[in-house]
Amino acid sequence: MSKKIMILPGDGIGPEIVEQAVAVLKTADEKFGLGLEFSEGLIGGASIDAHGEPLTDAELKKAGECDAVLLGAVGGPKWDKLDRAIRPEKGLLKIRSGLGLYANLRPAILYPQLADASSLKPEVVSGLDILIVRELTGGIYFGEPRGIRTLENGEKQGFNTYVYKESEIERIARTAFEAAQKRGGKLCSVDKANVLEVTVLWREVLDRLAPEYPDVELSHMYVDNAAMQLVRAPKQFDVMVTGNMFGDILSDAAAMLTGSIGMLPSASLNESGFGLYEPCHGSAPDIAGQGIANPLATILSAAMMLRYSLDMGDVADAIEAAVSKVLDQGLRTADIYTEGCKKVSTAEMGAAVVAAL
Amino acid sequence: MSKKIMILPGDGIGPEIVEQAVAVLKTADEKFGLGLEFSEGLIGGASIDAHGEPLTDAELKKAGECDAVLLGAVGGPKWDKLDRAIRPEKGLLKIRSGLGLYANLRPAILYPQLADASSLKPEVVSGLDILIVRELTGGIYFGEPRGIRTLENGEKQGFNTYVYKESEIERIARTAFEAAQKRGGKLCSVDKANVLEVTVLWREVLDRLAPEYPDVELSHMYVDNAAMQLVRAPKQFDVMVTGNMFGDILSDAAAMLTGSIGMLPSASLNESGFGLYEPCHGSAPDIAGQGIANPLATILSAAMMLRYSLDMGDVADAIEAAVSKVLDQGLRTADIYTEGCKKVSTAEMGAAVVAAL
Ligand SMILES: CC(C)[C@H](C(=O)O)[C@@H](O)C(=O)O
Ligand SMILES: CC(C)[C@H](C(=O)O)[C@@H](O)C(=O)O
Repeated sequence: MSKKIMILPGDGIGPEIVEQAVAVLKTADEKFGLGLEFSEGLIGGASIDAHGEPLTDAELKKAGECDAVLLGAVGGPKWDKLDRAIRPEKGLLKIRSGLGLYANLRPAILYPQLADASSLKPEVVSGLDILIVRELTGGIYFGEPRGIRTLENGEKQGFNTYVYKESEIERIARTAFEAAQKRGGKLCSVDKANVLEVTVLWREVLDRLAPEYPDVELSHMYVDNAAMQLVRAPKQFDVMVTGNMFGDILSDAAAMLTGSIGMLPSASLNESGFGLYEPCHGSAPDIAGQGIANPLATILSAAMMLRYSLDMGDVADAIEAAVSKVLDQGLRTADIYTEGCKKVSTAEMGAAVVAAL
Repeated sequence: MSKKIMILPGDGIGPEIVEQAVAVLKTADEKFGLGLEFSEGLIGGASIDAHGEPLTDAELKKAGECDAVLLGAVGGPKWDKLDRAIRPEKGLLKIRSGLGLYANLRPAILYPQLADASSLKPEVVSGLDILIVRELTGGIYFGEPRGIRTLENGEKQGFNTYVYKESEIERIARTAFEAAQKRGGKLCSVDKANVLEVTVLWREVLDRLAPEYPDVELSHMYVDNAAMQLVRAPKQFDVMVTGNMFGDILSDAAAMLTGSIGMLPSASLNESGFGLYEPCHGSAPDIAGQGIANPLATILSAAMMLRYSLDMGDVADAIEAAVSKVLDQGLRTADIYTEGCKKVSTAEMGAAVVAAL
């Protein structure tokens, strides 16, 4: 029984880092006989160049027929001046929404080998291990009405709609409660219920579900305070759950606490466990094509894919162990380099993981 | 010519810290003959207890007739279970909106004497001096329609509207450009223009105004990246400008970078320079009544008031110098205490500033 994986390299450093992750997956496939089958597609600027749009319906359909998708990154200055409807980012929003990938899991983990890379004091972040669960197909990202209109007096007005219904909140809340059950048993839900009605409903739904998860300790925090607490004492958190927009902001802040965003994978899942896997970082056009990007976040995303969508948890473990081993060997790409380590290229880092595997 | 100042102590530690700030203002008044006149009013929970609502129209009117308002803080668990329409926070939103206080200035400054208090590494934050300019009377905080409705299938849906028109963006942008002119000449505008139309308009207006301020270097940053950059390398920023919601989140994160949010004042101004001044921190109900809260943020807010609304910049300088002096003397309230310093109460700290003045 083969497993079909669609590869979407995207733009910027996307192709370089995805190449290494695919090499790792192929090695794992040979070694453990996984029966992986790969196909490749276009998204973002690469798709705009080929088809005039950031993700074609045909490509979306193909992706949906696979067992999982591995994505590099999208976007770059080349496409910044295009009409907003056909920007690279729209491809990402289209695949998330089109495949119903509502549950975005973003771990923020401090690798002990990279403890120095954080801008925070070691005692504040050592051992950091947070999971941010972000709702990904609703909220203000997709709410209607939206747009820019001209008012009677001739001035323009921009507007977006922040909207959630109970069922959308409930399913992401369950993902978060279940994640907390498998981790430290603590869930912090982030909202702005003192100002925004939509998050009043958010809080109500979380409170209503809580009794079903007696082994999880649920707390609520306003988003402004959550941003502060992440800076002040991030280790107080285990799992955090929040909407699309707040999740975008807080997960990036949390990732940066570790100082090595080039190390952090992410998963975006739908109801049936199908998932899109991508590094937390962007397409980094400034260093694209130089062969210096860090492929580890993408390799770790591939590991997450094996664990969550393909039910191959021990292979995922093996890949993660291989990554840890190359870090122990002192190999570092430029973004995580510190004195005394060995600076390596994207390809060398990928090859080292393959060898360690 | 006397200047009328309205004092709104509010809830929690509000009354304690405001008392010290008023003592400092009275001392300055005597010393420099400023002709200050004080009146006191109710806001937040204190007003709910007395009048059943968090800010009466009469009190709002009185505030508008003064030259400036000094506020402590609002809110506390006592009022958490009330109907949402009469929560303490609504008083704050009502006075901001009712008096047109659209320009919220939130400095994030690291006091050299308190460098150790930050959770960030000293080299990352030493000398930090950012000014966040937050739009305060528009955006999703006040956008209509808003509420919670029941859909046809019986489930509830929460919704809010994120809306800005050009004139609203333009006036806060000008505040920010002018602030940048008086500071380091750099302005970073924060938006989410790759997803939200309302912030596409935001970015357009900033770009349109930029040529009028050739001495200011304008840049744009997505909010998720801004949250990351504040953690990674906050000293890259001089002035940041953003909407109400993003400003709420980023200004709190920025304040926390300094490790001493008990030190940070804020100003909320309208078109004519009238302003409401309050500490960045909240009402801290957990320590209210114990006499251990830090009054310095409120005292520094009073200094800001003298500078921005009462045109008494040198008196403001004198108060700020007095605060610096008591820090040099090693006096610390509990929140900023480190070994080797002298721990003092709220009243002792206030008295020390009065003495230094
Ligand atoms: C590129 C952008 C549309 C996207 C988002 O805002 O979701 C990105 O920031 C992310 O977090 O994956
Ligand atoms: C209390 C609350 C309504 C308020 C806000 O969100 O504006 C507070 O967080 C602030 O930043 O002044």
